[in-house]
Amino acid sequence: MSFVVAVDIGGTQIRTAIYESNNLAPLQHQRVRSQALKPGVYDRLIRTIEAVWPKDGGVTAIGFSSPGPLDPHKGIILATPNIPEWRDFPIRAKLAEHFGVPVHIDNDANLAGLAEWKYGAGKGHHNVLYLTISTGIGGGVIIDDRLLQGHHGLAAEVGHMTIDPDGPLCGCGHRGHVESFASGPAIARYVNEQIEAGTKSTLHADPNLSARQVADAALEGDSLARAAFTRAGEYLGIGVANYLAILDPSIIVFGGGVSQVGDLLFKPFEESLRKNILHPRYLEDLVIARAALGDDAGLLGARALAELKTNGKN
Amino acid sequence: MSFVVAVDIGGTQIRTAIYESNNLAPLQHQRVRSQALKPGVYDRLIRTIEAVWPKDGGVTAIGFSSPGPLDPHKGIILATPNIPEWRDFPIRAKLAEHFGVPVHIDNDANLAGLAEWKYGAGKGHHNVLYLTISTGIGGGVIIDDRLLQGHHGLAAEVGHMTIDPDGPLCGCGHRGHVESFASGPAIARYVNEQIEAGTKSTLHADPNLSARQVADAALEGDSLARAAFTRAGEYLGIGVANYLAILDPSIIVFGGGVSQVGDLLFKPFEESLRKNILHPRYLEDLVIARAALGDDAGLLGARALAELKTNGKN
Repeated sequence: MSFVVAVDIGGTQIRTAIYESNNLAPLQHQRVRSQALKPGVYDRLIRTIEAVWPKDGGVTAIGFSSPGPLDPHKGIILATPNIPEWRDFPIRAKLAEHFGVPVHIDNDANLAGLAEWKYGAGKGHHNVLYLTISTGIGGGVIIDDRLLQGHHGLAAEVGHMTIDPDGPLCGCGHRGHVESFASGPAIARYVNEQIEAGTKSTLHADPNLSARQVADAALEGDSLARAAFTRAGEYLGIGVANYLAILDPSIIVFGGGVSQVGDLLFKPFEESLRKNILHPRYLEDLVIARAALGDDAGLLGARALAELKTNGKN
Repeated sequence: MSFVVAVDIGGTQIRTAIYESNNLAPLQHQRVRSQALKPGVYDRLIRTIEAVWPKDGGVTAIGFSSPGPLDPHKGIILATPNIPEWRDFPIRAKLAEHFGVPVHIDNDANLAGLAEWKYGAGKGHHNVLYLTISTGIGGGVIIDDRLLQGHHGLAAEVGHMTIDPDGPLCGCGHRGHVESFASGPAIARYVNEQIEAGTKSTLHADPNLSARQVADAALEGDSLARAAFTRAGEYLGIGVANYLAILDPSIIVFGGGVSQVGDLLFKPFEESLRKNILHPRYLEDLVIARAALGDDAGLLGARALAELKTNGKN
């Protein structure tokens, strides 16, 4: 038998699973808390992988998903803010030495995109744009059935495209990125700013305001809350029109918590996309879908990466 | 012997050439005026291909470069403004029927990018961003040694990325595209607007003003002319920072007439790129180069496409 082991590490939990090649469900899986701010993350990781490792061997590769930024070509985690202990951390070399098999890594958004293409909403498509909208905006891009990684492994940072040089400050320090208009915190910030400027709302200015609370107020008819999502959708439409002009995918898959608000965001988004698209032909038979794999996307993406690399397909 | 025939058609001329696979120079080549506004473009094209066609056969494919927009998958020229006779014109089927060999088509900017990767400034790189800056801004993208075409064949329309929703009107009818800030006409328009608004210059407001004239004035010290290129370079830097965050190439190749002005444009461009790039790592070992193939890029790109498709490499 031949297996791959998939690892998905985040700030909250470490998940591992072992897969047979033709079986979607894992043979074994394991989930522990990362305790990412405490020392010993790497040791916890090793134990969690060992918990699914088969006694009789047969593992051909490990696929590894982590928050970025990281270098998938060199196998190094650069400085993921979620795991402060790992800075320029040579995860691939360390795991390969410990387990004696090839290790393939990429960031969580890229691998969620890969998983949605291989197993989820993008199945059967050859050119996929995956966007996750939550605290930030990330993405994964499949071109002709291959994961777009780029020369430095930094491709598909779709949230950080300038669409207005005078726009709001982004978490990265630049201005007017798509993320600074349409992420959850960007939506909440806009509401806070408008309230402070005197706009009436059932919401109150609050630094801990969440996009979920704004969505709830919008659904109850609050006009500022609705306007906040309309604005986010409009800018998201500008950003996605830009991505389409460069990448021309056949499907856009939306994941992440903010994308679950539905029409509040997606109606103005689709209107803006139609208005801003370079040519209507880009939208012909373009599928706009919600992600299908939920929390399993990182794990399944790590698995898909390991299988593709093992078969020389990426 | 096996050969490919390359065709490069534009508003001004039709060029054809026949190539042996391991020889960069053509065995035969032909060049005639397109007379694109007069009837009979297709007949002139056929005769120009026949002029290089070998008597003893041996042609494995035709590669065809044309101004866009076109559908490379279906082999149809949609509506190239340079050749009004061709609207939804099934060039691939017609040529394949006439000559009895497979025909592969793509637009001139994509194929110039492919040629620069295969034979020119991008040789040896696996991820190339080619930008041509002239009347418009077009591009061609190579990812992992393959030409990015996209689902509808409309990928790499890099000039039409919104970087400021309140920016100048673009030729395509949208606002604030990279092309509307940094193409030749955009630079000349900015100078005209500033003169009409009262800015002093050695230039005079003139609807026929060219970027070349602006460059000449800038080189003679005209401060408005210099400012026009500085502004174009700054916005070009924002656009290219955006492309890098998505595509992460190892080289950017600049072609087109406007790119020949040199430091006037590229000094402010590089400064802006450094300022706007998401992370300095994108710029590590990034090569910024001028196109090497000049007018032959379309022909050599058509040739490269035919050879790659024949070998199943794209």
